[in-house]
Amino acid sequence: MPQYDLSAAELAAYRGSVTEPTGLAAFWEETLQASRARARAPRVEPVDARLPLVEVSDVTLSGYDGEPVRAWYRRPAGVGGDLPLVIRYQGYTGGRGLPHQVPHWTLAGYATLDVDSRGQGSGGGWVGDTPDPHGHGPSYLGGFMTRGLEDPARHYYRRLLTDAVLAVDAGVALPGVDRDRVVVAGVSQGGGIALAVSGLHDGLAGVLADVPFLCDMPRGVAIASAGPYLEVAAFLASHRDAADRAFATLAHFDAAVLGRRATAPALMSVALMDTVCPPSTVHAARNTYGGPSELVVYPWNDHEGGQFHQEAAQLEWLAKLLGGPTPGRG
Amino acid sequence: MPQYDLSAAELAAYRGSVTEPTGLAAFWEETLQASRARARAPRVEPVDARLPLVEVSDVTLSGYDGEPVRAWYRRPAGVGGDLPLVIRYQGYTGGRGLPHQVPHWTLAGYATLDVDSRGQGSGGGWVGDTPDPHGHGPSYLGGFMTRGLEDPARHYYRRLLTDAVLAVDAGVALPGVDRDRVVVAGVSQGGGIALAVSGLHDGLAGVLADVPFLCDMPRGVAIASAGPYLEVAAFLASHRDAADRAFATLAHFDAAVLGRRATAPALMSVALMDTVCPPSTVHAARNTYGGPSELVVYPWNDHEGGQFHQEAAQLEWLAKLLGGPTPGRG
Amino acid sequence: MPQYDLSAAELAAYRGSVTEPTGLAAFWEETLQASRARARAPRVEPVDARLPLVEVSDVTLSGYDGEPVRAWYRRPAGVGGDLPLVIRYQGYTGGRGLPHQVPHWTLAGYATLDVDSRGQGSGGGWVGDTPDPHGHGPSYLGGFMTRGLEDPARHYYRRLLTDAVLAVDAGVALPGVDRDRVVVAGVSQGGGIALAVSGLHDGLAGVLADVPFLCDMPRGVAIASAGPYLEVAAFLASHRDAADRAFATLAHFDAAVLGRRATAPALMSVALMDTVCPPSTVHAARNTYGGPSELVVYPWNDHEGGQFHQEAAQLEWLAKLLGGPTPGRG
Amino acid sequence: MPQYDLSAAELAAYRGSVTEPTGLAAFWEETLQASRARARAPRVEPVDARLPLVEVSDVTLSGYDGEPVRAWYRRPAGVGGDLPLVIRYQGYTGGRGLPHQVPHWTLAGYATLDVDSRGQGSGGGWVGDTPDPHGHGPSYLGGFMTRGLEDPARHYYRRLLTDAVLAVDAGVALPGVDRDRVVVAGVSQGGGIALAVSGLHDGLAGVLADVPFLCDMPRGVAIASAGPYLEVAAFLASHRDAADRAFATLAHFDAAVLGRRATAPALMSVALMDTVCPPSTVHAARNTYGGPSELVVYPWNDHEGGQFHQEAAQLEWLAKLLGGPTPGRG
Amino acid sequence: MPQYDLSAAELAAYRGSVTEPTGLAAFWEETLQASRARARAPRVEPVDARLPLVEVSDVTLSGYDGEPVRAWYRRPAGVGGDLPLVIRYQGYTGGRGLPHQVPHWTLAGYATLDVDSRGQGSGGGWVGDTPDPHGHGPSYLGGFMTRGLEDPARHYYRRLLTDAVLAVDAGVALPGVDRDRVVVAGVSQGGGIALAVSGLHDGLAGVLADVPFLCDMPRGVAIASAGPYLEVAAFLASHRDAADRAFATLAHFDAAVLGRRATAPALMSVALMDTVCPPSTVHAARNTYGGPSELVVYPWNDHEGGQFHQEAAQLEWLAKLLGGPTPGRG
Amino acid sequence: MPQYDLSAAELAAYRGSVTEPTGLAAFWEETLQASRARARAPRVEPVDARLPLVEVSDVTLSGYDGEPVRAWYRRPAGVGGDLPLVIRYQGYTGGRGLPHQVPHWTLAGYATLDVDSRGQGSGGGWVGDTPDPHGHGPSYLGGFMTRGLEDPARHYYRRLLTDAVLAVDAGVALPGVDRDRVVVAGVSQGGGIALAVSGLHDGLAGVLADVPFLCDMPRGVAIASAGPYLEVAAFLASHRDAADRAFATLAHFDAAVLGRRATAPALMSVALMDTVCPPSTVHAARNTYGGPSELVVYPWNDHEGGQFHQEAAQLEWLAKLLGGPTPGRG
Repeated sequence: MPQYDLSAAELAAYRGSVTEPTGLAAFWEETLQASRARARAPRVEPVDARLPLVEVSDVTLSGYDGEPVRAWYRRPAGVGGDLPLVIRYQGYTGGRGLPHQVPHWTLAGYATLDVDSRGQGSGGGWVGDTPDPHGHGPSYLGGFMTRGLEDPARHYYRRLLTDAVLAVDAGVALPGVDRDRVVVAGVSQGGGIALAVSGLHDGLAGVLADVPFLCDMPRGVAIASAGPYLEVAAFLASHRDAADRAFATLAHFDAAVLGRRATAPALMSVALMDTVCPPSTVHAARNTYGGPSELVVYPWNDHEGGQFHQEAAQLEWLAKLLGGPTPGRG
Repeated sequence: MPQYDLSAAELAAYRGSVTEPTGLAAFWEETLQASRARARAPRVEPVDARLPLVEVSDVTLSGYDGEPVRAWYRRPAGVGGDLPLVIRYQGYTGGRGLPHQVPHWTLAGYATLDVDSRGQGSGGGWVGDTPDPHGHGPSYLGGFMTRGLEDPARHYYRRLLTDAVLAVDAGVALPGVDRDRVVVAGVSQGGGIALAVSGLHDGLAGVLADVPFLCDMPRGVAIASAGPYLEVAAFLASHRDAADRAFATLAHFDAAVLGRRATAPALMSVALMDTVCPPSTVHAARNTYGGPSELVVYPWNDHEGGQFHQEAAQLEWLAKLLGGPTPGRG
Repeated sequence: MPQYDLSAAELAAYRGSVTEPTGLAAFWEETLQASRARARAPRVEPVDARLPLVEVSDVTLSGYDGEPVRAWYRRPAGVGGDLPLVIRYQGYTGGRGLPHQVPHWTLAGYATLDVDSRGQGSGGGWVGDTPDPHGHGPSYLGGFMTRGLEDPARHYYRRLLTDAVLAVDAGVALPGVDRDRVVVAGVSQGGGIALAVSGLHDGLAGVLADVPFLCDMPRGVAIASAGPYLEVAAFLASHRDAADRAFATLAHFDAAVLGRRATAPALMSVALMDTVCPPSTVHAARNTYGGPSELVVYPWNDHEGGQFHQEAAQLEWLAKLLGGPTPGRG
Repeated sequence: MPQYDLSAAELAAYRGSVTEPTGLAAFWEETLQASRARARAPRVEPVDARLPLVEVSDVTLSGYDGEPVRAWYRRPAGVGGDLPLVIRYQGYTGGRGLPHQVPHWTLAGYATLDVDSRGQGSGGGWVGDTPDPHGHGPSYLGGFMTRGLEDPARHYYRRLLTDAVLAVDAGVALPGVDRDRVVVAGVSQGGGIALAVSGLHDGLAGVLADVPFLCDMPRGVAIASAGPYLEVAAFLASHRDAADRAFATLAHFDAAVLGRRATAPALMSVALMDTVCPPSTVHAARNTYGGPSELVVYPWNDHEGGQFHQEAAQLEWLAKLLGGPTPGRG
Repeated sequence: MPQYDLSAAELAAYRGSVTEPTGLAAFWEETLQASRARARAPRVEPVDARLPLVEVSDVTLSGYDGEPVRAWYRRPAGVGGDLPLVIRYQGYTGGRGLPHQVPHWTLAGYATLDVDSRGQGSGGGWVGDTPDPHGHGPSYLGGFMTRGLEDPARHYYRRLLTDAVLAVDAGVALPGVDRDRVVVAGVSQGGGIALAVSGLHDGLAGVLADVPFLCDMPRGVAIASAGPYLEVAAFLASHRDAADRAFATLAHFDAAVLGRRATAPALMSVALMDTVCPPSTVHAARNTYGGPSELVVYPWNDHEGGQFHQEAAQLEWLAKLLGGPTPGRG
Repeated sequence: MPQYDLSAAELAAYRGSVTEPTGLAAFWEETLQASRARARAPRVEPVDARLPLVEVSDVTLSGYDGEPVRAWYRRPAGVGGDLPLVIRYQGYTGGRGLPHQVPHWTLAGYATLDVDSRGQGSGGGWVGDTPDPHGHGPSYLGGFMTRGLEDPARHYYRRLLTDAVLAVDAGVALPGVDRDRVVVAGVSQGGGIALAVSGLHDGLAGVLADVPFLCDMPRGVAIASAGPYLEVAAFLASHRDAADRAFATLAHFDAAVLGRRATAPALMSVALMDTVCPPSTVHAARNTYGGPSELVVYPWNDHEGGQFHQEAAQLEWLAKLLGGPTPGRG
């Protein structure tokens, strides 16, 4: 796929097509308050992942409406004290994986929390364990984008983003976490979630958002040629009178809208041949982001984006941001 | 796609790969009994479809666990008395459509009932109006095959087939229906549902099942190269240890198993280049079907099967079966 | 396929790339006069379609050069008097279908005439019964677009459009037709034909043209990525010196040229992701159309366009236009 | 595409699925006699191809029903006397090409005649100049395979094969041809025509048939996954009741049937990954061929077959067969 | 892609199509001896991967003809003593990656050595740093499979497998390695290399070969529908007279031949929908393997095979085999 | 593929994106001088191609660093004296072919020299016989484009273009060549080589460059959607930090840079639907070409370009340029 989107100059100026919906702040305030009211302390159970270098725990945290969400909490084995924490959200259709699927940040000495996406967890071998009780267990190609398009209150991403915000609450409360050094992170859907969370949760130390999904969604639906934006286009192709309401709903979860409220520093990345998350949609998120940000541009990549090179860049950026993975006050 | 499946001689003898699960009868008896216990009389509201020739009513019937299921009830305008009724179930992802999407059977003088598939209703322009409250409203490519694969009690098709059986209950109770002349019908998923219903509901007058889905599912998953069987393959490709349980679950909804209990005469069709519902899976259903049956073979078609030619064959077959659409005892 | 064509503002202003060929009026006047001179009254033979609600007759009308063209004439059963008539032309490769393939307009109480496309009639299950008794020069894969590109007098669409115009003559002459309320209609090729006929036949009451083909053909050939415009591109890819003559020929049949002569009100539709009939080509036809017109825009559809939703829109528009399907002077 | 057809042992034994139709001999005798009765001597006009090494003439010969067929007659420049003649028929959609598209046989010293395929002549840059002045009934996307499937007397290949047989008559009559050393040749469709001609014309010296089309057509239609056999499958997919008649028609032109009458030695070739002309269909032709034959097998090729390597093999085989291109009695 | 290869019973019995070439033992003895004669001790240079948990060293070892081959040597940080070593070979086109791309075995406490594939190292983001300083004859699209097909002595895999065997020599010599507990491992090409090395190097403790490439290559070339076997088919499609020599060359590197000489226990895996490494080719390797072996079958996977699930199975299998990653004599 | 690149007006003005690298002249002067210093007289051996009309000789000429390069030298049989010579370079992956694959220029009376591309020679049936005895660093799927991207001195095209320039030296020295009438020619890669040679070798009489590759490479890599430019994009997608160096390397071989130094008249061609060599890249070469030039535009072609029509145009253009193929001083 060639470089098909706006020119470099246009990308640098592009701020997206979505206006903040009326009542957005109240919508989220009420949503989060209600779910937090039902939250319990996370349950943490050690598991044997056959990995002497890493301690892995199976966490059950409270998500939307108090419903359980599964996550893996990992720490360098034998390291005491409070560590910085990197919370990772998953790509579309993926789950938290198996216990031994350790992210690079753990090896770099950080504590990490890999959070399931409810109802997802069957894609690309990244299995999950969290049902969406407003429906069903993990399902493939689940059409999550189109569940509840008729009403923000019932849309799937209201539940998923609430899970994600409350995962930060839970992460801060985990034993051995330095609450002043919590970073949210993710690739694609995970990157979009991280950006959204950055606008919905105070006190974050940083944001890592790679080729993020969920940004400037109307444009994504109009010009993406692969990936889950096409689910919305396909839905609207049948439900021809539903577009206004659908986009009004999605605006409540648009990471290029929610991210305007963020203040934490962010490291983002974009790929100029990305057919799944078009470059302009990512630039819209970056150009309107509320906090300081850096953007790494990969001109020759499709949606795989920076991959291992971006991981290396993150390790360097985090070291500067957090002063290294050395334990804190613990 | 060429003719890729078994030879003609092998197809004639093939009886499928699925053994009836232990406790199948009890499973369905309890399921249906529980939902029937919560059923209410169907609500019937006339709508203006701008069609002087056809009376259209919006029906809300009680499905699984008493939950509402939407359907269109159509009759030739101005025709009194009790008419034979053809109940149609929908293809995968499709819904009951708009009021003016009238099936050929209505034009042939029969009453018809077009039943929504819960949670589906966004595919190919066939919109639906029935949510699956064990989850969500209509969603595209919703991965219905894989919702609840871990347990027959929680699988999506338990709810959908219960809806389908109770749609017969409701259909019989509609005003102007000759209860001795009720036929179930459908194409693809709809055909699979009709076959399954034929084994779960007594007293049916006939079954029309075209290129039916849901038959001999393990083989379908192993050799289909397009369509929803691939959802199961994709799910198992990630959940590598879930295959036994998944197929044990699906066996409860396999139309080539449930159809063994049927007694009503059936007209089926199969396409020998069908990549979605492989010819062998349809032959398995036909070769083990409990009642008398005819099979129309389309050697040169993919999953579109007999299409309009099969419709014409149905009108002829129904006329013989039912003695024409003349009103009965009404 | 994303939204790939001109922007909304550009579409609103775009008037196409084709200049009316010199002598166009004379070309058509002579063509139609010659064929009308050989026309005979349509032959109308009732057929049994097994549809008590609809009377179906097999019509043989006189087309180009007096050659027979087949059509289905359908009326609500038992309705006397003169009815409005909707004449439908078929999509590319399709024919008039089987007797029971009843359009929605018939159910809405209108008389309808479904006209075959000569030589076509094998696509998508829509069979036809009308040969094209004329040979042709070299053509790429035999597509109808390329038969006779060397000369307007010998091009396939000269014959097909003449058939279409004379089908109006025949329709007006059918028993039970209100000649003041005749509407021409079609989807894709059928829509292009309807637009062309609107410029070639006086006295029409209305035009229904959905995602019309045959409009602003040079642009269609340059930017379509699917469908029959590609036949012309493929032909010119071999016959590299034939482009000027080919487009000069096609200009005689361009619905965005012929429609400039129309006066009847038109309801059109366009899909912004249409890869077969690019949105700009449809806008060219609409923006230069001679009569009053409305355009329904489907932003998220490919060539399926508005489908059932557009059918519903048509029933409403026709009711306003024609005062309902009530019989007239009959 | 992998090796997908029968095993090597099965191929060696396979003799096809087509029985010679009743009256085949009479059908062709009458057909050829009628057209020969209307034949005139070929018209031969030198053209300037800017090729000092080759004399090129534009030939117009009498084909089916006396209709003109165009061909290029080429000879080594300045060579007198009667030369052996290789007559080439064209691949599907191709024509005789431009004057300078000289076959390898001409360079090898033979006279050659490149015969147009009526109505074709636009594919792959091989342009043609011969119209097919005959109309046809409904055909899928206008493919030549489906023109006249309803009746052998009206099928396209009756005309095309008659052209091909009469091209031998004309070739023999050309100035400077050694009538005892005439070879027919072709690739794909051209190879099928050559085989058919070998059974319809006496006195041929040899046959070159590479990856021939038109052999054992019912099997070709059932298992080919690319190319023109798919046109028949697509036609039958709509015209579901036309299969018996269609295959009865095609049997009159099946090169694996007509070739049984041949006596001239043949050099054939087959590719084991050929998706257009399946290996079994070619083996059926070879295994039932009436004369002596050699078969070159290309295990790793799709429909491109032996290409330049087969050309080299032909030059060697022809040299043995004909004693070299030395002039004869001229 | 459906399950397309042999049936389960046939797979269980299938032993492949390749006979051991004459002189195979001598070929490898001489090859290895010559390169070992030019080998030097590996150079080991620590690198900063920003990973406190893992020590990473950049190793330069002596491969074919003494040429340098790069590898990453990784150990759990701060763990003294001699550890078991897992040597990983890379998938087709991949390289050793970046320093922080740590395999799961390292986290499980084993020392690991990730060996570059010369000339490869650009695929899927797995970059490499090892050139192949040897030229080659004509090759199709430059694929490694076709470099030197004309002669085993010059084929690319002679050099690559020599590198792989000498990587074991080097691995054994690394500081902190328990030479009695060395395992070779890999996926796809890496799995094929591991199997080949198991037949070429004594004293290995175990072999991990997932969906291995390079097994029973003639069958792979005949039936694979994706991946690098197609490079050979494409080469032979042009070089039509080169097949015998090509397969004679490849037989020297066939893992289903070399593995017959192995004695170490092996854990293998196969996917029944694998289009790149057909299931029969893997079974051929397993069914003829010289040592004890287990085979994990993934019925619903394409070439991704067992992925993370297979990793987990490996950790368990290795723990049994090696008695855990506890340091040995060090 | 539609017309996707710049508009006609933009194409007419577009001059490309590549600046001449510093030291380009010295780079090539040294390169050519070094190789010429090692050159020997070409070896010419007659072969029997079984073509009485054409004399074919197998030439071995000295290429890069004195390494042997194979070519076919062809002349009209029996024609004495010095003839104009057309030197043809090959398309990507192709070789010089078999002896009997005679270009049209030979038939037109010119002497021709068909030069192998080292290491290539397996694509599309055009086999080659010239190895590339040089190794390379990591390259994606082994494509020639990516061999040595790290350094102009080691890049594949340094060797290939040197071969091409020295082939002119050799051609001039062949017996029977009129050294004042030497033309370089080629299609795609061959056209790019011809343009590059036109800037690197004095005294050429003309250049024929059809749909040339290797022009304005950064843009080609950014917008091509098929063909070998994608190899560079794929390489850079893994080697994310290599882009600057890669394009700096490629600039030394960019035909739109080297062609600026040319003085010979050129006939070029471009196809406006070309997905392999985008129209803008070809226009960049033409618009900056140093000598007089004509450009034939094919609006409806993909990368096949003008094909036989362009061949005919070349014969006419050459006749004017060279005064016909009549022998010169010989």
